[in-house]
Amino acid sequence: MRIIVLGGVAAGTKVAAKLMREDRSNEVIILNKGENISYAGCGLPYYVGHVIEEKEQLIVNTPIKYEKLTGAQVFTNKEAIKVDKEKKKVTAIDCKTGEETVYTYDKLVIATGASPVRPSIEGINLKNVFVMRTPEDAIMLRELADSQEVKRAVVVGAGYIGLELAENLMNLGIKPFVMDMADQVLPGFDQDIAEYIETKLAENKIPVLTNTEVIRIEGDKKVEKVITNKRAFKADMVILCAGIRPNTAFLDSTGLEMVKGTLLTNAKGQTNDENIYAVGDCAMVSNAITNKAVWSPMGSTANINGRLVAQNIAGAKLNYKGTLGTAICKLAEFNVGRTGLTMEDAVKEGFNAVSVITVVDDKAHYMPGASSFIIKMIADRKSLMLLGVQVIGKGAVDKIIDMTVTAMMCHATLNDLEDMDLAYAPPFSTAIHPFTQTVNILKNKINGVFDTFTPQEYASKKAEGYQIIDTCLVPSIEGAPYVDLTSVNGMMSGFEPEDPLLLVCNKGKRAYLLQNRLKYYGYQNTKVLEGGISFTNVTVE
Amino acid sequence: MRIIVLGGVAAGTKVAAKLMREDRSNEVIILNKGENISYAGCGLPYYVGHVIEEKEQLIVNTPIKYEKLTGAQVFTNKEAIKVDKEKKKVTAIDCKTGEETVYTYDKLVIATGASPVRPSIEGINLKNVFVMRTPEDAIMLRELADSQEVKRAVVVGAGYIGLELAENLMNLGIKPFVMDMADQVLPGFDQDIAEYIETKLAENKIPVLTNTEVIRIEGDKKVEKVITNKRAFKADMVILCAGIRPNTAFLDSTGLEMVKGTLLTNAKGQTNDENIYAVGDCAMVSNAITNKAVWSPMGSTANINGRLVAQNIAGAKLNYKGTLGTAICKLAEFNVGRTGLTMEDAVKEGFNAVSVITVVDDKAHYMPGASSFIIKMIADRKSLMLLGVQVIGKGAVDKIIDMTVTAMMCHATLNDLEDMDLAYAPPFSTAIHPFTQTVNILKNKINGVFDTFTPQEYASKKAEGYQIIDTCLVPSIEGAPYVDLTSVNGMMSGFEPEDPLLLVCNKGKRAYLLQNRLKYYGYQNTKVLEGGISFTNVTVE
Repeated sequence: MRIIVLGGVAAGTKVAAKLMREDRSNEVIILNKGENISYAGCGLPYYVGHVIEEKEQLIVNTPIKYEKLTGAQVFTNKEAIKVDKEKKKVTAIDCKTGEETVYTYDKLVIATGASPVRPSIEGINLKNVFVMRTPEDAIMLRELADSQEVKRAVVVGAGYIGLELAENLMNLGIKPFVMDMADQVLPGFDQDIAEYIETKLAENKIPVLTNTEVIRIEGDKKVEKVITNKRAFKADMVILCAGIRPNTAFLDSTGLEMVKGTLLTNAKGQTNDENIYAVGDCAMVSNAITNKAVWSPMGSTANINGRLVAQNIAGAKLNYKGTLGTAICKLAEFNVGRTGLTMEDAVKEGFNAVSVITVVDDKAHYMPGASSFIIKMIADRKSLMLLGVQVIGKGAVDKIIDMTVTAMMCHATLNDLEDMDLAYAPPFSTAIHPFTQTVNILKNKINGVFDTFTPQEYASKKAEGYQIIDTCLVPSIEGAPYVDLTSVNGMMSGFEPEDPLLLVCNKGKRAYLLQNRLKYYGYQNTKVLEGGISFTNVTVE
Repeated sequence: MRIIVLGGVAAGTKVAAKLMREDRSNEVIILNKGENISYAGCGLPYYVGHVIEEKEQLIVNTPIKYEKLTGAQVFTNKEAIKVDKEKKKVTAIDCKTGEETVYTYDKLVIATGASPVRPSIEGINLKNVFVMRTPEDAIMLRELADSQEVKRAVVVGAGYIGLELAENLMNLGIKPFVMDMADQVLPGFDQDIAEYIETKLAENKIPVLTNTEVIRIEGDKKVEKVITNKRAFKADMVILCAGIRPNTAFLDSTGLEMVKGTLLTNAKGQTNDENIYAVGDCAMVSNAITNKAVWSPMGSTANINGRLVAQNIAGAKLNYKGTLGTAICKLAEFNVGRTGLTMEDAVKEGFNAVSVITVVDDKAHYMPGASSFIIKMIADRKSLMLLGVQVIGKGAVDKIIDMTVTAMMCHATLNDLEDMDLAYAPPFSTAIHPFTQTVNILKNKINGVFDTFTPQEYASKKAEGYQIIDTCLVPSIEGAPYVDLTSVNGMMSGFEPEDPLLLVCNKGKRAYLLQNRLKYYGYQNTKVLEGGISFTNVTVE
């Protein structure tokens, strides 16, 4: 069988290698537009920051090494320009010589990836304006960053790559400034979490401005200023991380189904032509919870689906279970991760969704380096199905996310997850695991044992009319009456049972304990602010 | 309702606090034998090693603080000596005055914990012989360790606490020597993994001798020498970490069912008397996979069950889903963890068990600090049910364990776990997650695509008659013919298709790729050594 694979970075090389392992009599040919195949795209920001020192480390395999290792053939500088699906032929052009070659195939795998969006604005072609997609991009960028010529960098785009890059630039002594047209950083996080991340970034010297559009870039030959709809920014360097676009323009007339330029696939990775598969950043996949088509341009999705597509071409009948939109990012001094549905998405999808925000120890509090996780957990109120998690913390955010993914892929309910025998020793976790604690707290909320306002409800003035009670370990909220939880053993003088009281402590726990007591003493109109002042900046007017 | 709780460390304080939150009209009384309640037992080795500096950090709550926080009452220095279950009375003696008090109860919770075993051998009462159970033990131990009088310490017992303590002593500049009567370190690991850990410990200056029994301790007033069945060891200090025994002797005549002194309980935490519950180190629980009664004397089990028992006393009908024998331990320069059944246990329990050992990257290989996980994964060959995992590595061993626990509590099969959308970014993981890789490899083994000898099979001479082929990246096995995987494109001269060949590389992957090629070229009698020379010391005779 002859299989042509268009593209040789993550998805393409994975498909081809696995196809050859499945049956070495296959003839597998990779046509790759660029010079390099199989490079570490996700590592580029770390190369810029000298976390990865040598550029050779970015190249996982050279074409020759790869061919020897796998038995697949690699042709570089070959850009596919036409697919004839009736005749099962693909035409490619040699990017150096302009020569055209036609290849016949039994199966075609489209893994052409995506390219960075370069907005057509004035000044976009000035010197020191970069995109970040290939090792060449990163090498050029680092050369300039190392040259001492750069004091200020504007990063356009506050997604994962943009923020990772900003952190790495900051570590080199360059002042980053990040801007995004969207109204929040990091798509895929609920707004409350995104805003918290924004604040933390600013505290860590990575200022971000949202709702900010670049109008033009100014400079005498090289970048000097970025003009936005808000104001102008001095900049010695601009990096465009403002999104990517699938490389599928050459397929426009083929009749292959696409959504906004991204190839639609079924669970087996096939397009609407059974002999043509699509995988990686140029393909749509499905969401494991909603079953809807989604775009998941991630190295992990590319690799997982590459393996699956190869097996299916070789005769298996495997169905991809779907993505969860999982993402994780190391930022300055803290990590953020997400998976599943956000609260906003869950409501849109028609779930009877409920969320909680907890602030829980990430390891035994007495261990050096112990810190907190901020966890937002979302579930369906009726079925108790776990729907999603968002986490922030200095510690093992990846652990919380991977547990959530595992649980969701097993269709777990909160009941399944409530008394798991998870790993505990003081350097790693707490006796009741932070994940379990969050499950317990969310169940308490669902069962009416824990009455709260979420930070979002608080921000949207739902707590208006409630009197804020400071129930921190020591008085911490100016202008709010302080109540020491441990001294409450009956009615509180000055407060009537029907008074609407908003109990606010550092993390939410002491307020919960106070609420529990107050209920016993007849106060039936109290709310706890989830996450306390660790998450929300509470002020009394 | 009046509830008497015997014992106030982990389980007892958890039960009492939760009982008061469930209904503050409860009268909850903790009778605690010692002076301290609610201390951080699991943190003691880290106090000894000055990782935790202040002794106050070991005390989670003082009795007074705890009473104010919870509303439960605490009586310290009260040792229960008799339970009359017909009259629902418990008698306690004051450890200072000898005075006896009788308490009536509606519900009784036994959470008396366990005490270290002190073998009755000669010299056991010499100065500088310690046990490690309470903060007082750790404080005395550290005082001596800090005094510069100690150069060599013998730790008796190579379980979790013993090894954690040995590491902490080593970090203080004291030479530890660990010995155990058992034939391996760390109960709960398969022998192959335990032996690997033993070797790594020795490399990290924590020598361990198994099958070693202490005959007597010698010295002039204070310890000088430990005499074992093997040889004598000089020692300035001996710490007994040779097991614990439940504190249940006072219940012998009550008719409460016990196994080897440990109280049997049902899934609700009840003993065979419906008004008496047992929780923590003095109680048996059940195993989530086998449903058999097991002893799980862990802080995490105590906390989880304490919460559950309190809710059940308050009227809930919750069933504990069971323990998985999960454990994790930070050792010198590496971490080890385990959960579920070992291969040995799985076979004993009648599963059609199959295991694989993988050596997989713990994060993107180009990131600083990247290392490997060694993962042993066990499943049922027929149902594909995941049965257990053991992990060793410098990195996030806790993540792999917690994912496994989550999967097992959701009754996951390998098919459920094969293409999960797990968290990937270079600082955290690999594009195909190490857990997923291990699932894939185990499935390949089950499907006959990957033919192996396990390290245990190799050790038990099952590979006799197989010629060892060195298939490492560079020649690494003296005396074995070297085959460069990438140069094999047909029959190998000097090897016949029927030759039994054992393919050995660094981690197992290159050998797998070679096996895959050799099959295609007609070699049907090859085996791969799982884990390669990273795990097994392979020599050619």
